[in-house]
Amino acid sequence: MPSPRILIHGGASVAFWRTATPGIRAQALRGLAAARDAGAAALRSGGSAIDAVCAAVMVLEDDPLFNAGTGGVRTSAGTLELDAALMCGATSRCAAICGVNRLLNPIDGCRRMLAEGKPVFMWGPHAEQRCLGLGAVLRRNDGPVPVESHAAGTVGALALDAAGHLAAATSTGGLAGKLPGRIGDSPVIGAGTWADHGCAVSCTGDGELFIRSAVAHSLALASGPLAVAAAQQLSRVAALGGMGGLIALRADGSLTAAVTGGDIARAWWTADGVSGDGLLAGDPWPA
Amino acid sequence: MPSPRILIHGGASVAFWRTATPGIRAQALRGLAAARDAGAAALRSGGSAIDAVCAAVMVLEDDPLFNAGTGGVRTSAGTLELDAALMCGATSRCAAICGVNRLLNPIDGCRRMLAEGKPVFMWGPHAEQRCLGLGAVLRRNDGPVPVESHAAGTVGALALDAAGHLAAATSTGGLAGKLPGRIGDSPVIGAGTWADHGCAVSCTGDGELFIRSAVAHSLALASGPLAVAAAQQLSRVAALGGMGGLIALRADGSLTAAVTGGDIARAWWTADGVSGDGLLAGDPWPA
Repeated sequence: MPSPRILIHGGASVAFWRTATPGIRAQALRGLAAARDAGAAALRSGGSAIDAVCAAVMVLEDDPLFNAGTGGVRTSAGTLELDAALMCGATSRCAAICGVNRLLNPIDGCRRMLAEGKPVFMWGPHAEQRCLGLGAVLRRNDGPVPVESHAAGTVGALALDAAGHLAAATSTGGLAGKLPGRIGDSPVIGAGTWADHGCAVSCTGDGELFIRSAVAHSLALASGPLAVAAAQQLSRVAALGGMGGLIALRADGSLTAAVTGGDIARAWWTADGVSGDGLLAGDPWPA
Repeated sequence: MPSPRILIHGGASVAFWRTATPGIRAQALRGLAAARDAGAAALRSGGSAIDAVCAAVMVLEDDPLFNAGTGGVRTSAGTLELDAALMCGATSRCAAICGVNRLLNPIDGCRRMLAEGKPVFMWGPHAEQRCLGLGAVLRRNDGPVPVESHAAGTVGALALDAAGHLAAATSTGGLAGKLPGRIGDSPVIGAGTWADHGCAVSCTGDGELFIRSAVAHSLALASGPLAVAAAQQLSRVAALGGMGGLIALRADGSLTAAVTGGDIARAWWTADGVSGDGLLAGDPWPA
């Protein structure tokens, strides 16, 4: 049985990471490491894969550098519309929300919905009301975000726990300047987020193309080396004219991060002592 | 090359169809035949698979016996929240909306969004505004539906056109008494609706379980006889404690309707002279 492990991403970008200042890059790597470490701590203390991915994603949602939760970018109307999804590979239970702006941690809202069972997918103010009713925490300021966001990308986390179970989580503010009401791939189970007994996947990039290609579910069903299968899925996105990236983790312990048309921020840890992080092509990659 | 063909469904139900009066059953069969014939007419006149599935679904959306469009059932708050999705197998272009109540024909709204390209998925009033801005037609009465709905099930249509291209469409009022904001599988590309070069699928039933199992996309990727693959997918839904049905059509011309835990309303037509319809297990089935 492979040791527990966690793999996270902080979004893919055509140019953000490669043109960022050294200070921003260092800040991003600190944020990724903090999220990775929060997930690792959950696994080390015997937590489930769901515990780990939620712990990691909440750290990234609270970090204004990433486009999720507190750092979510604005719509074309200047509003905040956050999407998130969570899936348990062992049970296929899942929860997803779209178009929320009053939750401090959308992924925590998903976790509360997942524990309830149904509905598994909700939109807008109804989704907020549901999550708040289940105990999710309000943002302190529920108006528009106070300063122009510099956030880069969607965030996601995958974990394998000591029981051999997988989980996947994705959280995002969506596309900067998006039309209000637009739903990207992150909360679409099978497109941007998926976990089953064999594989967990979290995606980031041109969301419409990930929906049209059902990327996360396609990759979970693919055979052969994981890195090759991931590249094949991203080549479908590229063939449609888009960019994006993903992370994937199999129950056999194999893990990969991949991107087409840009860079993807990533960090990983395994209980047998491997860890790393990176932003650009020349930085470390999980393998 | 197989001749053009269309296959539609009018929803799966544990008890509605088997306990309906002969008058209601006859009305349902007339509605299904009218929708099937509208799709067939589109194909006969050289229309695309997208033309055909939209023509068929619009007839069912306008028929108060079916749970879509005009006949959509109410939420627990007494409101109407309609979901719909459309996908073109040849291009992977798609469009989906959830939680709309002011559109006369949600599938027509999807068609207008699909023609635009992006976004491919939108929620609530923003989705309505987008579709209305693209020319979709308002319902005459945009308040709550005036009489208690007797609608049975979600509706869907699949077509194969003379160019060998597939399309899928699904439209629904969702679960009767659902929590406002709940999104079922119908508008989730890969769960309730899917089309690619090889296969098109439209599902109906316990939506949460179809999302958790990514049924439509799983079936599209399955090999072996279509009816066997469809039964395998529905057995996954049954294993999770639910009921539901689906229709599927492959580019080789094979087509099937299947249901677990109830009945599914269906009708079909092929340009080489086969047609039929049915509600109960003992009625005709496509093969």
